[in-house]
Amino acid sequence: MGFELTKEFLELLNTAVQQKNAPWVEENLFILHHADIAAIIDELEFDDSVYIYKLLNEELQADVLVELDEDLRDNIISTFSSKEIAEQLEFMDSDDAADLINEFPQKQVEEVIGHITDVDTAEDIVDLLKYEPDTAGGLMQKEFVQAKAEWPVNRCVVELRRQAEEVEKIFTIYVVDENNKLVGFLSLKSLLFAKQKTKISDLYQRKNIISVKTSDDNEEVAKIMEKYDLVSVPVVDIQNKLVGRITIDDVVDVIKDEAEKDFQLASGISENIESSDSVWRISKARIPWLFIGLVGGVLGAQVISMFEGGISEVPQLAFFIPLITAMGGNVGVQSSAIVVQSLARGTDQFGSTFKKLRKEALVSLVNGILLSIIIYGVGFVFHSATLGIVVSTSLLTVVIFAAIFGTLIPLMLDRYKIDPALATGPFITTLNDVLGLFIYLTIGVLAYGI
Amino acid sequence: MGFELTKEFLELLNTAVQQKNAPWVEENLFILHHADIAAIIDELEFDDSVYIYKLLNEELQADVLVELDEDLRDNIISTFSSKEIAEQLEFMDSDDAADLINEFPQKQVEEVIGHITDVDTAEDIVDLLKYEPDTAGGLMQKEFVQAKAEWPVNRCVVELRRQAEEVEKIFTIYVVDENNKLVGFLSLKSLLFAKQKTKISDLYQRKNIISVKTSDDNEEVAKIMEKYDLVSVPVVDIQNKLVGRITIDDVVDVIKDEAEKDFQLASGISENIESSDSVWRISKARIPWLFIGLVGGVLGAQVISMFEGGISEVPQLAFFIPLITAMGGNVGVQSSAIVVQSLARGTDQFGSTFKKLRKEALVSLVNGILLSIIIYGVGFVFHSATLGIVVSTSLLTVVIFAAIFGTLIPLMLDRYKIDPALATGPFITTLNDVLGLFIYLTIGVLAYGI
Repeated sequence: MGFELTKEFLELLNTAVQQKNAPWVEENLFILHHADIAAIIDELEFDDSVYIYKLLNEELQADVLVELDEDLRDNIISTFSSKEIAEQLEFMDSDDAADLINEFPQKQVEEVIGHITDVDTAEDIVDLLKYEPDTAGGLMQKEFVQAKAEWPVNRCVVELRRQAEEVEKIFTIYVVDENNKLVGFLSLKSLLFAKQKTKISDLYQRKNIISVKTSDDNEEVAKIMEKYDLVSVPVVDIQNKLVGRITIDDVVDVIKDEAEKDFQLASGISENIESSDSVWRISKARIPWLFIGLVGGVLGAQVISMFEGGISEVPQLAFFIPLITAMGGNVGVQSSAIVVQSLARGTDQFGSTFKKLRKEALVSLVNGILLSIIIYGVGFVFHSATLGIVVSTSLLTVVIFAAIFGTLIPLMLDRYKIDPALATGPFITTLNDVLGLFIYLTIGVLAYGI
Repeated sequence: MGFELTKEFLELLNTAVQQKNAPWVEENLFILHHADIAAIIDELEFDDSVYIYKLLNEELQADVLVELDEDLRDNIISTFSSKEIAEQLEFMDSDDAADLINEFPQKQVEEVIGHITDVDTAEDIVDLLKYEPDTAGGLMQKEFVQAKAEWPVNRCVVELRRQAEEVEKIFTIYVVDENNKLVGFLSLKSLLFAKQKTKISDLYQRKNIISVKTSDDNEEVAKIMEKYDLVSVPVVDIQNKLVGRITIDDVVDVIKDEAEKDFQLASGISENIESSDSVWRISKARIPWLFIGLVGGVLGAQVISMFEGGISEVPQLAFFIPLITAMGGNVGVQSSAIVVQSLARGTDQFGSTFKKLRKEALVSLVNGILLSIIIYGVGFVFHSATLGIVVSTSLLTVVIFAAIFGTLIPLMLDRYKIDPALATGPFITTLNDVLGLFIYLTIGVLAYGI
């Protein structure tokens, strides 16, 4: 369940907005979850979005703002004064607030922070701004609850009640020593069922305390939370002092972004773009790979021109050029996709490169032989036995080479800390095109004795 | 933090296992988190894996078993009797237990369930086996805690203590009415801080109660949990009765699997495979797309053979065949990747097809013109003005057609409920190859007046 947005609802809402029918909007829209309100505002024209947004109370405004499409959010914020922005930030979780103003110019950041009335909120945001956005420090929030090991349960409940005012969702209570160093976990469940006088030190979990460091990479954090099935993870500084926590919803975003980035890179799109971005931005993200493809095509033309004599003598050789390049590309992409995924998963970390190569070579040999037999038949029936042999032997060779390059290149990129997803797609396709053409035409020229 | 597996540790462990040094293994391995133990066992030879596994106590055995690589898990289980399997299941969460025996033949399922001594556990598993694996019912677990609205807080705590024995992590307490229908949520936090005599009906949240139905698709569940930032979601039947819950860790797996499947489909791999699968399995998953590529190549050969006369007269035309096919493929893959991602995200659901097409056409026009100018220069300098014009005009045409097909095909597949990720990769590449060749050679023949 949850709300299902329909065209009918959107039409009713549009009518209400045109008629400035605020009661209708409040009665039908504002009863929804803030994520739904944001999704609906995303669908409207800008002026209508602003109209609805201004009708919301301050707390809902902050909740909705965090969920909006980035472009719309930036546009709405640009209609605010620094004081108004500061007011919204006070209703947000510290991580969302820091992410939001992180995109402002330095001068505006200072102005906005100057307008925040709650000292703790301001300090939390300033602290979070210190960290790189793609690290645990940049991902964490300052809202969490902690208990001291020496507290009895009844004091702990009193202390937590105060702390919990700011923390929407408590998953785990972090237990710290007198120096604020993380020593263990305490579940709300065990606290709820414990006797009043029991000491926290008799209740908390000391074994398998998983935490991350502020400097840990986002993706590292995601892998740890996934591996240990965590819904939140404490963040500590280099002295092991507790400084924040990361919740699973933020990590789900990291996982999705990472998967999307890999998919885009493998499809030859070099920046993270969305279909709602401008034509220029999309064009810019796509041209680098197209340019590499173009260079590959020109190199391919050079290779073929070396065999110009052969082709004018046996023009049938030209027939199978697209087949050879396409198959080399397809096999290369398949091979690299498997390597990229096993690297992304982080499994198989001690498997040797040689073992991977041998397996890929075997797979491509099996498939290559099958495809070569088929294409020999095609070449023989439609053209000649010689052409059949030329196409089938070069197809087999190209398929095996493509598999080897498709395996080696992402492994090499990974070793040099370059995202291996770059290898899948245009890069491998282009390389295999040039190589495949050379192999095919050489075999052709030799077979026909040109 | 958490454990970092090193080669040194693996070597020490291997030595200990060879010497059957059980105390070393217990002292150094069994202190780790069960996810780490599983990851380490995954790296060992089968006999050594079994040796270590049998040393674990029953509860840890169950925890580790759930985390193991699928192949290894199946192999270890096959060494067990039905009774031994039943003993392990009793230590597992009901969803993990059901997933595990779901893969057994019907006869063995019945045998294993017959050996489960705890009646509730057996009933829970039997109930879960009824649902399709890729639905909310197949994903949910029977371990959750519920409270009745009319209970006071102190009774609720007593009742929950009993229920909570089986539930490792409580996130939200589900509030139900006398007919077991879901009416709201209660957080542990509000329960902890409430007075003993307060009624649950005065505490629980009634607004924005998000739940899913047993028949809802896995991916739908993932989208809902992501949208509303949930760590758990209650599952209800068609009468709105509470029957289970789904936790975020299982949904993270769904999200990752979905992303991997899309990546593999787009790379021309038709089944979900891993690098550790057998050569035959990998070959089988890859051959369908290669075969389609082969058919495309043969069609391409047919297209070129129609222009055999032209090519033997102007063999330079053959030079740019790979460039045209590669660029058509690259642009098509880029366009379809953007559509596939916006479909996967579920954003932009009311954007019209026409608007998307117009944008893609614009992007490809911008990039196409830029690329065409460059390739005209190359053609002119290295060959002739005519060839430059032929290649550049056909490149522009091919790029625009490729963008249009790359946008339309995934949209069409999606409309007919076929996974649009199929469109990216070999399918679009192959189509664009054939079309591109026809456009290029037609323009060539016309320009040279052959």
